[in-house]
Amino acid sequence: MAKKKIIVIGGGFGGVFAAKALEKRGRGKLDVELVNANNYFVFQPLLPEVAASTIHSADAVVPLRQLLRRVQMRQAEVMGIDFAAKKVIVVQGTRRIPIDLYYDELVIALGTSVDLKRFPGLPEHALTMKDLADAHRLRTHVIGCLETADVTDDPEVKQQLLTFITVGAGFSGVETIAEVRELVRRALKYYPNIKEDEVRFYLIEYAPRILPTFPADLAAYATRRLEMHGIRVLTGVGTKSATGSAVELTDGRILPTSTIVATIGNGPHPLVASLGLDMKWARIKTDRFMRVPGQDGVWALGDAALIPLVDDPDDDPLLYATQTAQFAVREGRQLAANIVAKLDGKELKPFAYTSKGSLASLGMSKAVADVYGVKLSGTLAWLLWRGFYLSFLPGFTAKLRVGLNWLVNSVMPPNIVQIQSTPPATRYIHYRKGDRVFEPGMLIDGFYTVVRGSFQLTIDNPETGEHFAKLFRQGDHFGERVLLKSALRTGLVVALEDSVVLFIAQKDFTRFARAFPILDTYFKDYIEKTFGGPEKAFAAGSVNHKHELETLP
Amino acid sequence: MAKKKIIVIGGGFGGVFAAKALEKRGRGKLDVELVNANNYFVFQPLLPEVAASTIHSADAVVPLRQLLRRVQMRQAEVMGIDFAAKKVIVVQGTRRIPIDLYYDELVIALGTSVDLKRFPGLPEHALTMKDLADAHRLRTHVIGCLETADVTDDPEVKQQLLTFITVGAGFSGVETIAEVRELVRRALKYYPNIKEDEVRFYLIEYAPRILPTFPADLAAYATRRLEMHGIRVLTGVGTKSATGSAVELTDGRILPTSTIVATIGNGPHPLVASLGLDMKWARIKTDRFMRVPGQDGVWALGDAALIPLVDDPDDDPLLYATQTAQFAVREGRQLAANIVAKLDGKELKPFAYTSKGSLASLGMSKAVADVYGVKLSGTLAWLLWRGFYLSFLPGFTAKLRVGLNWLVNSVMPPNIVQIQSTPPATRYIHYRKGDRVFEPGMLIDGFYTVVRGSFQLTIDNPETGEHFAKLFRQGDHFGERVLLKSALRTGLVVALEDSVVLFIAQKDFTRFARAFPILDTYFKDYIEKTFGGPEKAFAAGSVNHKHELETLP
Repeated sequence: MAKKKIIVIGGGFGGVFAAKALEKRGRGKLDVELVNANNYFVFQPLLPEVAASTIHSADAVVPLRQLLRRVQMRQAEVMGIDFAAKKVIVVQGTRRIPIDLYYDELVIALGTSVDLKRFPGLPEHALTMKDLADAHRLRTHVIGCLETADVTDDPEVKQQLLTFITVGAGFSGVETIAEVRELVRRALKYYPNIKEDEVRFYLIEYAPRILPTFPADLAAYATRRLEMHGIRVLTGVGTKSATGSAVELTDGRILPTSTIVATIGNGPHPLVASLGLDMKWARIKTDRFMRVPGQDGVWALGDAALIPLVDDPDDDPLLYATQTAQFAVREGRQLAANIVAKLDGKELKPFAYTSKGSLASLGMSKAVADVYGVKLSGTLAWLLWRGFYLSFLPGFTAKLRVGLNWLVNSVMPPNIVQIQSTPPATRYIHYRKGDRVFEPGMLIDGFYTVVRGSFQLTIDNPETGEHFAKLFRQGDHFGERVLLKSALRTGLVVALEDSVVLFIAQKDFTRFARAFPILDTYFKDYIEKTFGGPEKAFAAGSVNHKHELETLP
Repeated sequence: MAKKKIIVIGGGFGGVFAAKALEKRGRGKLDVELVNANNYFVFQPLLPEVAASTIHSADAVVPLRQLLRRVQMRQAEVMGIDFAAKKVIVVQGTRRIPIDLYYDELVIALGTSVDLKRFPGLPEHALTMKDLADAHRLRTHVIGCLETADVTDDPEVKQQLLTFITVGAGFSGVETIAEVRELVRRALKYYPNIKEDEVRFYLIEYAPRILPTFPADLAAYATRRLEMHGIRVLTGVGTKSATGSAVELTDGRILPTSTIVATIGNGPHPLVASLGLDMKWARIKTDRFMRVPGQDGVWALGDAALIPLVDDPDDDPLLYATQTAQFAVREGRQLAANIVAKLDGKELKPFAYTSKGSLASLGMSKAVADVYGVKLSGTLAWLLWRGFYLSFLPGFTAKLRVGLNWLVNSVMPPNIVQIQSTPPATRYIHYRKGDRVFEPGMLIDGFYTVVRGSFQLTIDNPETGEHFAKLFRQGDHFGERVLLKSALRTGLVVALEDSVVLFIAQKDFTRFARAFPILDTYFKDYIEKTFGGPEKAFAAGSVNHKHELETLP
């Protein structure tokens, strides 16, 4: 008999445990393939520790090929699913020709994604904590803030750099702010010009209390512990909007900050959203056996799926499987059993599981735990937390690596190496009314096009007494002198209302404007007409070696 | 007495050892500040091991603040030096206002940079091995090649992906190809569809033999060992040019490859080149005391400096200090002593040092060594190599970390986690005559402007029998359907001669074209005029969920 082809898409807890169980139960009968964008499994509970550099980035993840030795692993992006033809369309590597993968049974385990669109400025200015790159970015960002704060002479800039804000106080938010605080505290002795009381940490939660899934007394304990360590816990207040230099709360407060971590806003994975399946609460509706109704051979599990625990759960969220690793692991095993049962013509079993409890680390060797109804807090809970996650981490190598990390890190100075990466070439930037985009004396960095709102440019030449002013509205642009051989801004640009620009970095913009004749002509004309030529309004700065034009290849 | 301000720019071996010695010898008299773009010191000899993931990226570097506890560390970019005003102009953090740092004595320790301009295509398509990001990029790239090769059905693509080339056979080139080979060999058991004999490694050297600084018999031994492990050593042949899919050698051979590592082409640091100092062989000429003649209080050392070992060395390179860590460390100490002597009104001492030998690792626990004139090869040399570099690594914590890495890695499976990063938004791509830029059925990825050369587009519509052809020359563009809601290419674009394009990634190009009215209008007109409207020549693909337009912020 030909082997049945099972494709699992998504390599989180649900996908990995389903693939593992399928391979084991179906050996010889099933050909299992797992498709994932990354070649590794992310152990999400450890991401805050990666951000704090307690754990090396590569040690909080496990290569899928090592975890699933007998499963075909394919690192690829899923572009679409054709349910009628029973195929998944993927793109892999640099040769971008879509490939069809045909399945007999398909398991959708794509998880969720972050959706911050309801909060203006948050998608553009907040960091998230979903994957390894996020944790790495947060760590790099925090150390960068310390580096600059140590040498800046501007007290406002310093305060902004030393204010760290986490929005959302579930597990992820609480553990993230606790770990960031731990990293900063340990690092401070290497930053002689930063005093501990200059650093501020905020945990912002819209609900009346933090850790909503925990008993109230444990949440109260956690709040006290966080506050004892200098973390300001603000509950009952939400985030309204954000810019690159501040966050505005629903009570009108504006907190100047360079660091906002958003752990709120769960939305469906973009592919899941595009499949046309029956969804509820942004999750794929399944039956109690985790089958997707109306589709032949399609299953869903994990955070992406809404799996009822009883026959008619209606709108009671407690009657569906919760979106935790604990559940996903059990769902994976049950789903594998059901697929094998289906192929063998046997009876399927509905998914059933009751949570055994919750754990949350508070940093500083403290945690809260609610296990089998027993409530624990403090160091014992923290040891339990570490032990539990170590046991939960799949693979012996991974356990050993993380254990060693913890051991080494507890006796060594913190790792404050900042591995910088290039910021994206284009980005949308939000400004609040009155914010300065740039001012005279700043190094040119790129080109700005107004997407929404308005800005005012003023140039004053102290030598000639000349004054120049110009208003920019949607579709207008400023900062084009990035194309000229001058290094410093001579004008001041201020937002006249809450506004958004598209920023294009100098190198990328210059490359395009030089290569593309329409732009080249347009900007020459524009500079001539608006400013009276390239020489007129532009005083050359003294630091122009960086702005030599790139040699064309 | 007011303290004298000493600024050291550059945090490599020369800068770090100079700063350390200055702080120690000048305690209470000197105020030492080190300016570096990164907040860490890179232990360059270990970079190939980072590329092979034998060592965690963060462990091959040491935070400068931990290394130089009493030195003010400033993570900033040096934009210029005003020798007359005795100030260094730097830019730090996100607030890009240049800051003046005044010095009494200035130490230039900026090292060198890679300059591949002589080889068309190499600057754009080769990886380098200068800093931590390079090593990390190479590792990620190699694992990505294995991931795609494991699942591709195209034998040509597979061969290209499994060919790894290093250009230049000094220490860095030899160790890099040896380590890449080691990583691939250890990783292969997780890639069931790749056979060992499908993988090719090349080491290409223009000189008649590898390791030019070693005795000939050691180099011959190294060549034999590398070849025994399947690395093809090509000497007496250079690199002529490169594209994204092949490298062309000076003997006319074309090797299809996705991976070219260039360890050749030393050029001056861009800032050093812009200073207007007296240079020779791309290095700053100093006197025997490491002073820069004609400048008040300016010193130079390390790879950036050309330090004579005798009074009139003329054009004999052997009569100048060599560009190695061994020399840089001694130069740093002597330079610090000379600065202190100068300030104390005492006599300066000329720099003098003789190399104690060389070591090069060949992977597979083998190395070659030439120490105090004693020649060693094999495992003993390799143990010496490890011991020597461990002892040379500054700081106890760093030694312990690297030692642990070696220990853990020797008993554990290789780390094949691929932490992907976004490719740059704009890049120049070289094509050889006949190369395909894209073909029908490929996913659209971006927009192309012709920088040099020419291309031919052909579209054949099998349904209507229509045929469309167009020639593109410098300033022309293709791929603009990236702006439309269609997912797959319908045309074939081929290079008619050796050519270069500027590529702009889909997301960034679309953002700009939408925000900037001139472009928006231009492309609507262009598509109408050239193809007869957006509907005409563009067949919508089946995988279009990825190409929904981004919601404007």
